[in-house]
Amino acid sequence: MRKHILRCITCKKEFDPKPGLYYCEDCGKILGTLEVIYDYDSIKEESAVKEKKFDKKASMYQFDFLLPTESKLKFDEYVGGTPLFKFDLLGIKDVLVKYDGSNPSSSYKDRASSIAINRALDEGNDTLFCASTGNAASSLATLNAHTKMKTYIFVPSTIPDGKRAQLEISGAEVMAVEGTYDEVYDASLELGLKKGWYCRHAAINPYLLEGKKTGAFEIIIQNDFVIPDYVLVGVGDGTVISSLYKGFWEFKEIGLTDKIPRIIGVQAEGIPAIKKVFDKGKPYKPQTIKGNTIADSISVGKPRDVIKACTYIEACNGYFITLSDEEILDAIIELGKETGLFAEPAGAVPYGGLKKLTYEENITESDTVCLVITGNGLKDVNAVEGLINTESLTIKELEKRFE
Amino acid sequence: MRKHILRCITCKKEFDPKPGLYYCEDCGKILGTLEVIYDYDSIKEESAVKEKKFDKKASMYQFDFLLPTESKLKFDEYVGGTPLFKFDLLGIKDVLVKYDGSNPSSSYKDRASSIAINRALDEGNDTLFCASTGNAASSLATLNAHTKMKTYIFVPSTIPDGKRAQLEISGAEVMAVEGTYDEVYDASLELGLKKGWYCRHAAINPYLLEGKKTGAFEIIIQNDFVIPDYVLVGVGDGTVISSLYKGFWEFKEIGLTDKIPRIIGVQAEGIPAIKKVFDKGKPYKPQTIKGNTIADSISVGKPRDVIKACTYIEACNGYFITLSDEEILDAIIELGKETGLFAEPAGAVPYGGLKKLTYEENITESDTVCLVITGNGLKDVNAVEGLINTESLTIKELEKRFE
Repeated sequence: MRKHILRCITCKKEFDPKPGLYYCEDCGKILGTLEVIYDYDSIKEESAVKEKKFDKKASMYQFDFLLPTESKLKFDEYVGGTPLFKFDLLGIKDVLVKYDGSNPSSSYKDRASSIAINRALDEGNDTLFCASTGNAASSLATLNAHTKMKTYIFVPSTIPDGKRAQLEISGAEVMAVEGTYDEVYDASLELGLKKGWYCRHAAINPYLLEGKKTGAFEIIIQNDFVIPDYVLVGVGDGTVISSLYKGFWEFKEIGLTDKIPRIIGVQAEGIPAIKKVFDKGKPYKPQTIKGNTIADSISVGKPRDVIKACTYIEACNGYFITLSDEEILDAIIELGKETGLFAEPAGAVPYGGLKKLTYEENITESDTVCLVITGNGLKDVNAVEGLINTESLTIKELEKRFE
Repeated sequence: MRKHILRCITCKKEFDPKPGLYYCEDCGKILGTLEVIYDYDSIKEESAVKEKKFDKKASMYQFDFLLPTESKLKFDEYVGGTPLFKFDLLGIKDVLVKYDGSNPSSSYKDRASSIAINRALDEGNDTLFCASTGNAASSLATLNAHTKMKTYIFVPSTIPDGKRAQLEISGAEVMAVEGTYDEVYDASLELGLKKGWYCRHAAINPYLLEGKKTGAFEIIIQNDFVIPDYVLVGVGDGTVISSLYKGFWEFKEIGLTDKIPRIIGVQAEGIPAIKKVFDKGKPYKPQTIKGNTIADSISVGKPRDVIKACTYIEACNGYFITLSDEEILDAIIELGKETGLFAEPAGAVPYGGLKKLTYEENITESDTVCLVITGNGLKDVNAVEGLINTESLTIKELEKRFE
């Protein structure tokens, strides 16, 4: 395990790591999210780093010189190392597309769950917990099936049977609780922390971002250390976007690159919680908003990593934009037709964002761009059912059509 | 492109390849499926083969010395190279699990579609077609989105909107036709062949098996050339199981291994079409049976690769077994709990088969075993909806539960 300290994003107070320490108690859960900080000067001098010996298809654990875990599982070998495709899109040549739908549980979240599991093992814990209806939960359940540790997943009792079935199939104990997502989240967080279970809430537990940042490392090595001008990603809680910044920042910090891309967060017009905070400017004041979107994975009114996301995006001269649900659905379809990649709604928003920005000429054909697609479209097939043509033909009509 | 000839599985007549030649006209579509035969003696002497320089995560095109295509697409790099996990299962240590749910369209079928697309390009064709409601169709649509060629998919008009949507999103022309699956299959096959479109029907077009066999090559190299005693796989049309035999046979033929595993085909009790033919013995007589199963991908009453499957499985001293739908559902759940892998019903049957065979002591703890999981469980979430616990709690009850 890499030596590190924890630092509060708001008051900058530093802490030595210890089990159960997830956030700065002075600043609270949302203002006081912590950063994991390593000794970059000494890492810079290590031979593995200096020789730049990386493998474009290896798992995320090839970056163990910047990871905070000691335990290793056989399964770790299959997390990360996802494809970086290149497509000509929207008039731009060789748009990079990082596609995390091919992770074991078909989403970006596996990077974080894997770290949570190894940290829990490091700390000698026997239980992990998570409140989620979606990718984080199925990811934790999937990966934790490989250990003897228990998994508790807390979900609102209204979630679809299919989603619940996936969780139970992986052997998780699914606790369906009556209440809104926020109520269930708060109650389960309180319960889990009291019980001392290991917390797999990416926006609370700073270590999870350490897993997610490996997506940025992979973009760098898979593109031969050429850093794109822009990276676009969907934003809900703010953790993935924060992790991308941290990944690019750390590789610069240890001397492997000399640039951080402008990172653009794409939110749903119906519930743009982080954009609102960011656009108001500093000091960033968390607020809870109401709203909704078809893009389930980014439908977040009370974002938990808002301070980190705003701080980091400002640091790289990035910004936030929004898309309407109609634009999101169009993005799923166009991305599919252009690339064959089937993305869940939240996974398609970077494409929609690029479309908007090229139309407005904020991004032009001379820019280099990377889109981060966080989840497989099979995760949410219902979202696209309404989009299709429903014509049918008899066999006779079919033959006639092609005469 | 590797030089090769085509040989009828039944009458052994040999043909030189030419566009539009898919089966032996003397023996017909089902009796006359063709084998692609290379000059193994000369391939054996090539340095790439002799040096055994393989990469455990490289795409299936690392085996181009045994592939019948010339064209190359950027996307090819991401087909195959799927994980080979090891798990302790059912009392057997280190059961190998080949998991093809992480291919681009989340199934084994991408190996075949990729070859179809490259062959179509090699032949100068501009259109591919396929009749399928499932994995073959979404695979072809996904991968062909990367070319300028057109994709026609023929489906019964009764397929669920979600499946149709996935096909349309990848830019395929979906023709929904009124009729049973077999009627639509036959009508579209006739139409497509008449039009001269490239045929992506794995059991008709012998080249598609050439893509699928790379799964066997990967099992061999990922397990460091140690061949398991048994390989278990689900069986519908009979093409995947045939391809596995051919892959193991070819690596032996070119001197890379000295053993072919016993391959066991697992069918659904409700529609065991190939098992029936196999168990009656030689000469194998194709027959159409009625029946059904929840395991959509192997629900085939008129298997098209029955002669090849029976011939090959006899050659390796393999056999066929069946599972009830209840056993298949149990297999999905147990596989999930034991490994975290979420398989579609047809993908879970090898696990169910192993369970049955260890219970009957036909396979024991001293045997080495590989299970081939052909599709991601997200492909068919509905299949498992009925399996879950539906209890829910209020927040107060939750707190009490954990007091």
